[in-house]
Amino acid sequence: MANRVDEILSWYGSDNPGVLKNLRWMMDTGTLAGTGKMVILPVDQGFEHGPARTFAKNAPGYDPHYHYQLAIDAGCNAYAAPLGFLEAGARTYAGRIPTILKLNNSDSLYSSEDPCPAITGSVDDALRLGCAAIGYTIYPGSAHRNEMYGELRAISEEAKAAGLAVVVWSYPRGSGLSKDGETGIDVAAYAAQIAAQLGAHIIKVKPPTDFIEQDAARKVYESEGIKIDTLADRVQHVIQSAFDGRRIVIFSGGAAKGEEEVLEEIKGIAQGGGFGSIMGRNSFQRSKTEGIKLLQAAMQIYKDA
Amino acid sequence: MANRVDEILSWYGSDNPGVLKNLRWMMDTGTLAGTGKMVILPVDQGFEHGPARTFAKNAPGYDPHYHYQLAIDAGCNAYAAPLGFLEAGARTYAGRIPTILKLNNSDSLYSSEDPCPAITGSVDDALRLGCAAIGYTIYPGSAHRNEMYGELRAISEEAKAAGLAVVVWSYPRGSGLSKDGETGIDVAAYAAQIAAQLGAHIIKVKPPTDFIEQDAARKVYESEGIKIDTLADRVQHVIQSAFDGRRIVIFSGGAAKGEEEVLEEIKGIAQGGGFGSIMGRNSFQRSKTEGIKLLQAAMQIYKDA
Amino acid sequence: MANRVDEILSWYGSDNPGVLKNLRWMMDTGTLAGTGKMVILPVDQGFEHGPARTFAKNAPGYDPHYHYQLAIDAGCNAYAAPLGFLEAGARTYAGRIPTILKLNNSDSLYSSEDPCPAITGSVDDALRLGCAAIGYTIYPGSAHRNEMYGELRAISEEAKAAGLAVVVWSYPRGSGLSKDGETGIDVAAYAAQIAAQLGAHIIKVKPPTDFIEQDAARKVYESEGIKIDTLADRVQHVIQSAFDGRRIVIFSGGAAKGEEEVLEEIKGIAQGGGFGSIMGRNSFQRSKTEGIKLLQAAMQIYKDA
Amino acid sequence: MANRVDEILSWYGSDNPGVLKNLRWMMDTGTLAGTGKMVILPVDQGFEHGPARTFAKNAPGYDPHYHYQLAIDAGCNAYAAPLGFLEAGARTYAGRIPTILKLNNSDSLYSSEDPCPAITGSVDDALRLGCAAIGYTIYPGSAHRNEMYGELRAISEEAKAAGLAVVVWSYPRGSGLSKDGETGIDVAAYAAQIAAQLGAHIIKVKPPTDFIEQDAARKVYESEGIKIDTLADRVQHVIQSAFDGRRIVIFSGGAAKGEEEVLEEIKGIAQGGGFGSIMGRNSFQRSKTEGIKLLQAAMQIYKDA
Amino acid sequence: MANRVDEILSWYGSDNPGVLKNLRWMMDTGTLAGTGKMVILPVDQGFEHGPARTFAKNAPGYDPHYHYQLAIDAGCNAYAAPLGFLEAGARTYAGRIPTILKLNNSDSLYSSEDPCPAITGSVDDALRLGCAAIGYTIYPGSAHRNEMYGELRAISEEAKAAGLAVVVWSYPRGSGLSKDGETGIDVAAYAAQIAAQLGAHIIKVKPPTDFIEQDAARKVYESEGIKIDTLADRVQHVIQSAFDGRRIVIFSGGAAKGEEEVLEEIKGIAQGGGFGSIMGRNSFQRSKTEGIKLLQAAMQIYKDA
Repeated sequence: MANRVDEILSWYGSDNPGVLKNLRWMMDTGTLAGTGKMVILPVDQGFEHGPARTFAKNAPGYDPHYHYQLAIDAGCNAYAAPLGFLEAGARTYAGRIPTILKLNNSDSLYSSEDPCPAITGSVDDALRLGCAAIGYTIYPGSAHRNEMYGELRAISEEAKAAGLAVVVWSYPRGSGLSKDGETGIDVAAYAAQIAAQLGAHIIKVKPPTDFIEQDAARKVYESEGIKIDTLADRVQHVIQSAFDGRRIVIFSGGAAKGEEEVLEEIKGIAQGGGFGSIMGRNSFQRSKTEGIKLLQAAMQIYKDA
Repeated sequence: MANRVDEILSWYGSDNPGVLKNLRWMMDTGTLAGTGKMVILPVDQGFEHGPARTFAKNAPGYDPHYHYQLAIDAGCNAYAAPLGFLEAGARTYAGRIPTILKLNNSDSLYSSEDPCPAITGSVDDALRLGCAAIGYTIYPGSAHRNEMYGELRAISEEAKAAGLAVVVWSYPRGSGLSKDGETGIDVAAYAAQIAAQLGAHIIKVKPPTDFIEQDAARKVYESEGIKIDTLADRVQHVIQSAFDGRRIVIFSGGAAKGEEEVLEEIKGIAQGGGFGSIMGRNSFQRSKTEGIKLLQAAMQIYKDA
Repeated sequence: MANRVDEILSWYGSDNPGVLKNLRWMMDTGTLAGTGKMVILPVDQGFEHGPARTFAKNAPGYDPHYHYQLAIDAGCNAYAAPLGFLEAGARTYAGRIPTILKLNNSDSLYSSEDPCPAITGSVDDALRLGCAAIGYTIYPGSAHRNEMYGELRAISEEAKAAGLAVVVWSYPRGSGLSKDGETGIDVAAYAAQIAAQLGAHIIKVKPPTDFIEQDAARKVYESEGIKIDTLADRVQHVIQSAFDGRRIVIFSGGAAKGEEEVLEEIKGIAQGGGFGSIMGRNSFQRSKTEGIKLLQAAMQIYKDA
Repeated sequence: MANRVDEILSWYGSDNPGVLKNLRWMMDTGTLAGTGKMVILPVDQGFEHGPARTFAKNAPGYDPHYHYQLAIDAGCNAYAAPLGFLEAGARTYAGRIPTILKLNNSDSLYSSEDPCPAITGSVDDALRLGCAAIGYTIYPGSAHRNEMYGELRAISEEAKAAGLAVVVWSYPRGSGLSKDGETGIDVAAYAAQIAAQLGAHIIKVKPPTDFIEQDAARKVYESEGIKIDTLADRVQHVIQSAFDGRRIVIFSGGAAKGEEEVLEEIKGIAQGGGFGSIMGRNSFQRSKTEGIKLLQAAMQIYKDA
Repeated sequence: MANRVDEILSWYGSDNPGVLKNLRWMMDTGTLAGTGKMVILPVDQGFEHGPARTFAKNAPGYDPHYHYQLAIDAGCNAYAAPLGFLEAGARTYAGRIPTILKLNNSDSLYSSEDPCPAITGSVDDALRLGCAAIGYTIYPGSAHRNEMYGELRAISEEAKAAGLAVVVWSYPRGSGLSKDGETGIDVAAYAAQIAAQLGAHIIKVKPPTDFIEQDAARKVYESEGIKIDTLADRVQHVIQSAFDGRRIVIFSGGAAKGEEEVLEEIKGIAQGGGFGSIMGRNSFQRSKTEGIKLLQAAMQIYKDA
């Protein structure tokens, strides 16, 4: 099993050993340790969607310590959150689970067709909090995408020099895209490519649909017979689009939904060769027992893949 | 009583002892010393609303020394003001009451649907003036919110390294919100969450109404049965929304009003578990005797809670 | 009584309110609060003389928390120590007593006729640890004195800008002086003058003897009839030599000795107008009960003066 | 067992969560994971004594990978080495064992009565190599000690801000001490105190003998009846001298010797409450099998203690 | 009269208007305002010779405010002192008289054949204290002269950029010179040249004797018939040696002596074209009435010249 982690690390030949250490830390933690697969708990919805919409369904989740403990108890590989949530628990949980400091975030008290998140943390914050990685969201399709790409570039350069891994949430959104297009297969594959080209170590995208946004792309998908029928097909194509499998690509779970639906989706991701899932609302918007059960079921699917 | 202060300080595990010292200084000062409750005097309305609107009702308030002395005589925990007001009295009152330097402020000679305050002070200013904390206002709901969040992030990092506490005025306002929405319960809770996620040590919000601004939020408030009937209910929900009570949340008094009305509101805040009040216009727009009387009545309510 | 503190602060007209705040914090703390007198607990002998020589007589003193608690329980104005001792307790005791971070120290595993301490802490350390002041030792009479003066100058400038008070241990020592000369009255007065000219806010010297080291000085002492017969006379002259009483001068207690001898000395210091004592070994090398008793007896003498 | 690690971490209240993470990483690694005890493999003798003297006895040791693997296979808590050795293996072994980058080193092509090591690495090197800590050697007793203390101070401040732990080799040596004095009990206890006061998280000293170097110290050892008869007594006294047990103190193994002799010494260290051993030559100057056997026997002693 | 000041300022064509402002401030202050002549009060002897030797003869001089007031009451052009003395009065006397911050000083508790002063202040100190100039002492003839010259260069560069004038005390002293040589005419002229070449705006030397230190110089003085018989001759030669009169050269008064002797010397300086005097001990070691009387008599001589 350890061989698989070493194989994955061999893809990151331009990164220093500090980055590799932190990638390994995440891959050697929790139930999926050593498999090269990952299930990560992200909790930035308090900032992104507001507290009641995020935590009211399972009120213990208002407490920042809850999520540290949930990630540990469920056997997750890492826990990702904005500055405040990590600061509120970092001393108590120091070194007990790899953490990812989200360095930009959007709230939804102001909505804009072309979103652009605020910078909410720094590489120095990540070092003093003992994080394994920094996280950063880009919105390809937004009129402000270039500002985000440029910020990411500068932050990544600093993070990599300090030995921190870089996790990029690549979420197409904005006036350049239709609503269906945001999760269209051509757009999802393109989003993965952009994050990879910007130097991400780990790329997070949404599970793609079979919608195709761009005419120019559609022609190629048809002429070359790219298979996009099943989720597994589409996941495989996204991973191919992230340097032919040489980058870790994980998939978000999206809005809270039924357990079966969640696991069905994960099966598709696993069959397509996905490296894992990053499951927020489906984890912490259930009771702790239910959340752990679902996270562990997801891990089992990856283990069996 | 001292135990309560130690308990509160234990929530700030990522902060250095310098920050804890200044949090303790504020909590160990004045009539409410040792209770973990706070009544703070803020006087930034001269900048925000203009001098006559601010000080004419009680003309001694034009003098910056008046407010230092008022805060001391009334037994407040701290006094907050912009650069000029603090500079004008800092030597005379050095060390006699904790001060909070407001690092950004908006004037009202230019009004904008989407406000964005000017930076009006620095962390170095706060150190040379002997302040316990820096204060910073964000306007969630403004088109410029992200600029404010990013500035706050950088200023907080510097302030925390220098051992200063960070107090955030989180005041939803701007084209993203309706007028009623600015103090709606969902928005107030969200504003508290945003400030907490940005790393605030002390969060200041307005007392929330039972208005709900966002449809997505309303569904949750209804489905989860979140109680928002009384002010106490709503305050409790706001505090829950600021890391389940792991952050100090205080409430502003708003526009000047009758004494009874003020105290009624404070009773609601205290019943809901609020950590205190920050009362400006209701303090210094009365005669000194009346102002002190009202401040002390407020403190008594927190003591009895 | 508070008037006396205000009067003392008025002497420091070139300092910013941050420095005044920290001077006031020290003068408003403990049993002597408000009197303008000070009794400070210094514990740097572990570094200066070694642990067994320092702590074996009262073994609880090996524990850094012991000294914080001793200073608090005895009602001292402040506690001074090197980096390690403060780091080991700063979180627990944050804000409970003003601390002075000693920024240079000498060990005695290497002895040199012309001593020069090592830099062992920084102004930034003092800020993150929440200190009220930095402490620095100079050895007038050492061949390396100018190096120390230059370091002190640079450190003081940085400390003062950040609002920290500067406490200087001025201990004549080195090949330029005889053994008796180290505590001779002319040398002690000169040491106080040097520290004052270098910009110290608080000056610590040893109680002077009636020995006169320098021939050029003896002529003046005799021709001008400067009284140096009693300790009170000599203390008065030292204070005069520190800007005619415009700087706070405190006196060290020296090696551990009998209680009566200690108190007799302090009476002389108090009669001569000394601002207080800094008593290390005579405090912590006794049992805690005895140490507190002696510290409180010293405070009583200053109160009665 | 995890409780013991948490208890130890609670002593480091002035440090940020990043430092705690790295201390935990070392204490949670290898055979002694969770016990709060440590056995560390240090290999800086190639630089300090020359390659043949260091590696010829067990020639595979010329290869830097050998030592990484040895530390892993034996179940050590960490591996310490200078820049070159770590650079040569850091990619291959990234994240597989905590590493300590030695930031200063002395070679023996020039010998000086008063040694002063060269700076051979930086905090940034430690971050890019993914280290858990930096290591630094001081030579109390050397005429150049103050230069080392000052360098350590500056490097520690930078390392701590970046979340790295600080390990100090405190090795008395130089013209201020006799040969016997270098390991004398008074000097060893003093060396531990100096490292602790300089802010070390982990202190490494040599097992002390019952020799007493300083007359002033001897008086105290005799008058206070400090027990120094057995190694266990002396170790206990050294640990007491490092903040009464509030700092991790580990002991070096010294020159290569017989297995029985090594283990006898470790038993004494363990009985005296020592936190562990740092064994270089006794580990890698044996065959790999023999080296591992001896390291594991040492770990067993600490486990049983 | 103003013409003379403008003429003098015209010599400083490479300096920025800030420097000219401060030179003019000094030349437009006091009794000699507008004459281009200067009488300056310097008080650094407390640091240089010790407090009793300096102040006991006229005890009010222990108080730093005394000297500010003396300089103002006597109508001096400026007052020069080390950091501590200026800090102790700078607020009270802010802007009431130009001040010169002495940036280096020597104490006499350690004496060395080759003196080298300590740095005791900075250009930033001079700015925050509102000074017109910085002062700096060099000891041509000392083995450490190059260190002083180098420091002066760097400090001057910084001072000039900040608009501060540079006053250099050029006092030949050290193992390179005989005792008589320190004030020999060849050495004094050479000292003035060195200061001028190092970029001084105002040069302070001692009144020269007719002694000639260097054989190589003597040959020239004789062959060229340079007149050095009277003090006026020698002063004229010194001024010639400072860029043929294009730099302000003033003369120190030396040890306290009889009134007549002082005034006789000043007459010689004035006759030789000296720009003024800098009189310390002869001013403040008399009663205030006597000191003012002597200073005013000196000014009258320069006015009449």
